Amino acid sequence: MPNNDKPIGVFDSGLGGLTVARAISHALPHESITYVGDTKRCPYGPRDQAEVRLFVRQVGAWLERRDVKFVVVACNTATAAGLDVLQRALDVPVIGVIEPGARAAVQATRTRRVGVLATQGSVDSGAYPSAIHMLDAGVGVTQQAAPVFVDIVERKLTSGECLHKEWMRDRGVFDAPDVRLAVEQGVAPLMNRGIDTVVLGCTHFPLLSRQIRAALGDGVRIVSSAEETCRELAETLERRGDLASADNEPTYRFASTSDDITSFAVAGSFIFGHDLDSIEHIDVEDLEALADERDMEGN
Amino acid sequence: MPNNDKPIGVFDSGLGGLTVARAISHALPHESITYVGDTKRCPYGPRDQAEVRLFVRQVGAWLERRDVKFVVVACNTATAAGLDVLQRALDVPVIGVIEPGARAAVQATRTRRVGVLATQGSVDSGAYPSAIHMLDAGVGVTQQAAPVFVDIVERKLTSGECLHKEWMRDRGVFDAPDVRLAVEQGVAPLMNRGIDTVVLGCTHFPLLSRQIRAALGDGVRIVSSAEETCRELAETLERRGDLASADNEPTYRFASTSDDITSFAVAGSFIFGHDLDSIEHIDVEDLEALADERDMEGN
Repeated sequence: MPNNDKPIGVFDSGLGGLTVARAISHALPHESITYVGDTKRCPYGPRDQAEVRLFVRQVGAWLERRDVKFVVVACNTATAAGLDVLQRALDVPVIGVIEPGARAAVQATRTRRVGVLATQGSVDSGAYPSAIHMLDAGVGVTQQAAPVFVDIVERKLTSGECLHKEWMRDRGVFDAPDVRLAVEQGVAPLMNRGIDTVVLGCTHFPLLSRQIRAALGDGVRIVSSAEETCRELAETLERRGDLASADNEPTYRFASTSDDITSFAVAGSFIFGHDLDSIEHIDVEDLEALADERDMEGN
Repeated sequence: MPNNDKPIGVFDSGLGGLTVARAISHALPHESITYVGDTKRCPYGPRDQAEVRLFVRQVGAWLERRDVKFVVVACNTATAAGLDVLQRALDVPVIGVIEPGARAAVQATRTRRVGVLATQGSVDSGAYPSAIHMLDAGVGVTQQAAPVFVDIVERKLTSGECLHKEWMRDRGVFDAPDVRLAVEQGVAPLMNRGIDTVVLGCTHFPLLSRQIRAALGDGVRIVSSAEETCRELAETLERRGDLASADNEPTYRFASTSDDITSFAVAGSFIFGHDLDSIEHIDVEDLEALADERDMEGN
């Protein structure tokens, strides 16, 4: 296979990264994607940094064996903890979701005050304020942890509601009053602070973007890390001359460490936007062995 | 004047930043530009960081008084020393030349080895390796100081040769054998190291890009910080909705702290690509007073 037509590896601790895969499949329709959700060990958020770095390294080694041309770490926690490790370890380029979102927010803000909605782990890592201030030391950043948003998405997606395909398709599943109320409460600390731009710093959050937008009001611009990461990917592939050829028939492959492939398939198809035809099971033990092997090779 | 049609402030310690102003005038032909060359206190390179930060602050205050909508610090030394100070001090967005060049190099390299040609001061600051590794910890960076390139450009531009307009226009002035030899020697340490991408980390160097390209050979891609900074500017203006209107008649104004406005005009018109119609003299004392005033206002 010519290098250009090799798949892009995308990975997340779970399902949220499928928002990034979806953005890629829309913006770059000739690109093949190999997606890994490390769902068995999900969530990464509460784990310590060293452990997350190890997991990132393992999934990276698995993707490398699948001969991907590029790796996207589509998970904020994994990016904050392990992006640099993977960039040093792999021969192909690796990007994360934090810098592209931070950059878009810095470019967009007029009031020079940016809000970040993320998980507690991402907030605690300080990765967004750090990336934003690297680009513009004069932009004020207010972070707000919204762990309940992840719970809502996970709960709704794994509930029976998700089996109603029509309802899923128009995202009606997140229009329930309890969701609207939880979103309003979640974003409240970002209101009335002069913030005109809010970064969705968790790959689950784009699923609630309509509700978050309604809660924040028209004056606030929403930056989706998923879309911005996809932009960064497209720009890099173009600059390297690595875009898939126009006649490439893209393949979408999915892999999960979870034993329950069915619920991955159902929730995943909702997020990705169409059925996940090919889902592979990965044994966590195999992942562990892979990273060990590569380390023994001196990489 | 509507905010969109206000000028973009561009500044450099001297003339090199005019390569950035030129790139802006080509890529964004409706944008007005107000350019400041702090030529009397040029070069900034040998000065200590605290002094450069103060100068950056002063010129920034001058540009703010001129009601610019955006500031581009078109000087590597000034960016490394004072970008963050200016971003904190001004209400308008401020970008430098280092991050855009670093980003383009990271995106472009296939061998994951990047070369940086810069002044000694920029090399010593480590600003390029730091910006490159923030984006991709796995990219190797080799820096090479080429102070002689600045000398060549300055010497040629202020020599009698520059008065032959036709010769200037096709850049023949830099095709002399002595220049070619100096450039070959300057880039030699970057050869045979697997480097496929070289950043021109000094705003003077795009003037020698043809010669640098010839010396490095076809396999090496040249990244011009001037062009990449212009890209970043365009993207930010667009995202903010701040692009000048299509019917804006752009004005180009120039200001210099030098007492010898004539030589600024001659060399400047060569770099900018057409005559500098309006050149203002700025007293260094006035600059000093401006920054003091603003500091007393509590900013």
